[in-house]
Amino acid sequence: MRDVAVIGVGITTFGELWEKSLRDIWVEAALAALDDAGIDTIDSFYVGCMSGGLFVGQEHLGSVLADYLGACPVPGTRVESACASGSVAFRAGFLEVASGASDFVLVSGVEKMTDVSGDEATYALATAADMEYEGYHGITFPGLYAMIARAHMHKYGTTREQMAQVSVKNHANGAMNPHAQYPYPITVEQVLNSVKVAEPLRILDCSPITDGAAAVVLCPLDKARDLTQKPVVKISGSGHATDTIALHSRKDLSWLSAVETAAKKAYTMAGMTPKDIDFAEVHDCFSIAEICILEALGFVEPGQGGPATEKGVTSLEGEIPINTSGGLKSKGHPVGASGVAQIVEVVSQLRGEAGKRALKKAQRGLAQNMGGSGASSLVHILEVV
Amino acid sequence: MRDVAVIGVGITTFGELWEKSLRDIWVEAALAALDDAGIDTIDSFYVGCMSGGLFVGQEHLGSVLADYLGACPVPGTRVESACASGSVAFRAGFLEVASGASDFVLVSGVEKMTDVSGDEATYALATAADMEYEGYHGITFPGLYAMIARAHMHKYGTTREQMAQVSVKNHANGAMNPHAQYPYPITVEQVLNSVKVAEPLRILDCSPITDGAAAVVLCPLDKARDLTQKPVVKISGSGHATDTIALHSRKDLSWLSAVETAAKKAYTMAGMTPKDIDFAEVHDCFSIAEICILEALGFVEPGQGGPATEKGVTSLEGEIPINTSGGLKSKGHPVGASGVAQIVEVVSQLRGEAGKRALKKAQRGLAQNMGGSGASSLVHILEVV
Repeated sequence: MRDVAVIGVGITTFGELWEKSLRDIWVEAALAALDDAGIDTIDSFYVGCMSGGLFVGQEHLGSVLADYLGACPVPGTRVESACASGSVAFRAGFLEVASGASDFVLVSGVEKMTDVSGDEATYALATAADMEYEGYHGITFPGLYAMIARAHMHKYGTTREQMAQVSVKNHANGAMNPHAQYPYPITVEQVLNSVKVAEPLRILDCSPITDGAAAVVLCPLDKARDLTQKPVVKISGSGHATDTIALHSRKDLSWLSAVETAAKKAYTMAGMTPKDIDFAEVHDCFSIAEICILEALGFVEPGQGGPATEKGVTSLEGEIPINTSGGLKSKGHPVGASGVAQIVEVVSQLRGEAGKRALKKAQRGLAQNMGGSGASSLVHILEVV
Repeated sequence: MRDVAVIGVGITTFGELWEKSLRDIWVEAALAALDDAGIDTIDSFYVGCMSGGLFVGQEHLGSVLADYLGACPVPGTRVESACASGSVAFRAGFLEVASGASDFVLVSGVEKMTDVSGDEATYALATAADMEYEGYHGITFPGLYAMIARAHMHKYGTTREQMAQVSVKNHANGAMNPHAQYPYPITVEQVLNSVKVAEPLRILDCSPITDGAAAVVLCPLDKARDLTQKPVVKISGSGHATDTIALHSRKDLSWLSAVETAAKKAYTMAGMTPKDIDFAEVHDCFSIAEICILEALGFVEPGQGGPATEKGVTSLEGEIPINTSGGLKSKGHPVGASGVAQIVEVVSQLRGEAGKRALKKAQRGLAQNMGGSGASSLVHILEVV
């Protein structure tokens, strides 16, 4: 396998983009990434999108987007793994360049979620769960993650305040991100007093419904040095794993085994351990998710995700800054785009282009994305070389 | 890139499988392919599915199916390119094995189309067209292909009878396929007198709505020889291309440029020309499509697809047998599965396992699959080595 680099990144503002279509925002992100990479032709592209069918009534996005980018006959492939669709696209592009089949591959993610009603969006999102045994019986994602939260609280003594602190920390970071949907700080009190969604989760524990797109350009590492004056970012590790689709089939609701397995694969490929990672973007679809992920990635011991968050270990100035972008909570969560948006943030930090939220030490970053209630997860490790 | 072989194939009966779910039929095909390959573990799998969301209200199929196969934490990725989803999955698996990232990859396709009404299925299929400029204005696929047929008739003098002969020939082949949805012969008169759908196309020019799944197992060529006693089938060429999503953007409605481009890539990779191919499975979603594809693949000159079909060039005993399986018309067209089902047929012919429809000469076979009105197409070339 050839070594692969990221040489360009692009992202739209995340939010309720009612005046733009899915095609519009995807092309905006794709052109930004190509411009950043300094190239104008690609060999192929991938687009992660969870449900073009249910959100905008349009499948076949590979061809739709190739056409609207003016890129036909370049092959375009849509990939899907619910909210992990973006990182599945990233892995597919990585493998294509690594194989030698292509040199320049655009990897992208997009979701246009606000063209349907809130009920319709909730139904579309529920199709990421086990519809036959979960969804059709009435449970949606806040309820599934509420059960995970209850299990974690019961097993480890994780507190409501610790979960709230995840959202507070991510909003503090997102306040410095010009692309964020909710770029302002919030307080623990606001989280604890916000509307109940599914006990113990409140609305400010939950990531929002968002329109947005993100894109990155990949090429062989040995070509990257000639193409960019910026720090060269290498993809050092990639891992992908699944877990049971339904929560009821798991032995321990508080443990995200797909995250652990994907991380181990990525660490092994990169020849690294959790201690080698300087910072990470992780899938905080709900506040409790970030706590579970900190543990499954090996950044803290099992049960220590809550206390570590409370102590500031994961803040911008902490030992392992998490979600410097604002995460899904503050930046927004256009489901198919989120995995690619994480890569955009990691690359921006590694290149020293993260503006006010730039980290002092950013040589090695990790991105963790997942689908459903953790039934699929991908982990990627990137580093400046 | 490493050379890659197909070492196992599996397929369900195609038809209206009301007593089985999407999960059931996918697992049935996957287990059949693993059994045929003689292995019980895989490194990853891909599943092509056009619209789990619109047909059965279930996305996130990578995890759903990993779970139901009992394969977690093996990574599973769903890919989509409308009716070309199956061959996009095949190409993704091919690249993963070629890259060296994985040794054993299951490639599959599935669609469960009869759990919704005919109107709902027609809407779901229309999302493969340009919904903003075609679908929402009322046109569906029979109408789009009727325009292609009119253009071809006008430019080349292609006749109604020639189109009917495509269906007649494919049903003659499908009558010998125990997995076919409609395994019986039909006559030209029956096609010409069948119900009108969109002039000049009648119902017997159109592929049906179908439930079904198909799967194949890939591994590095150098491992294949030790694993199977059967003839070793190598993937010699792979091409993927796009064209404009909407028909109105094309210069010539009668020419499928994505098919031509994908074929040229596959021929170049394989070091072959159309004359080197012994037989092919092609995407006869409508009778006119097969005629256009014969021309775009270079099997006949432009405009000669109709006359060649009439002369029997594409029959089982002809110079270039096409759709020995019965094609989409007789075998059935579970859209996400069709591209993989084509590979199953090509491998069966190459191995001499095609029963009554076995060809006398089958050393090199081609599979051509496409999405929408030809906005995406993939071509694969396989040969016995």
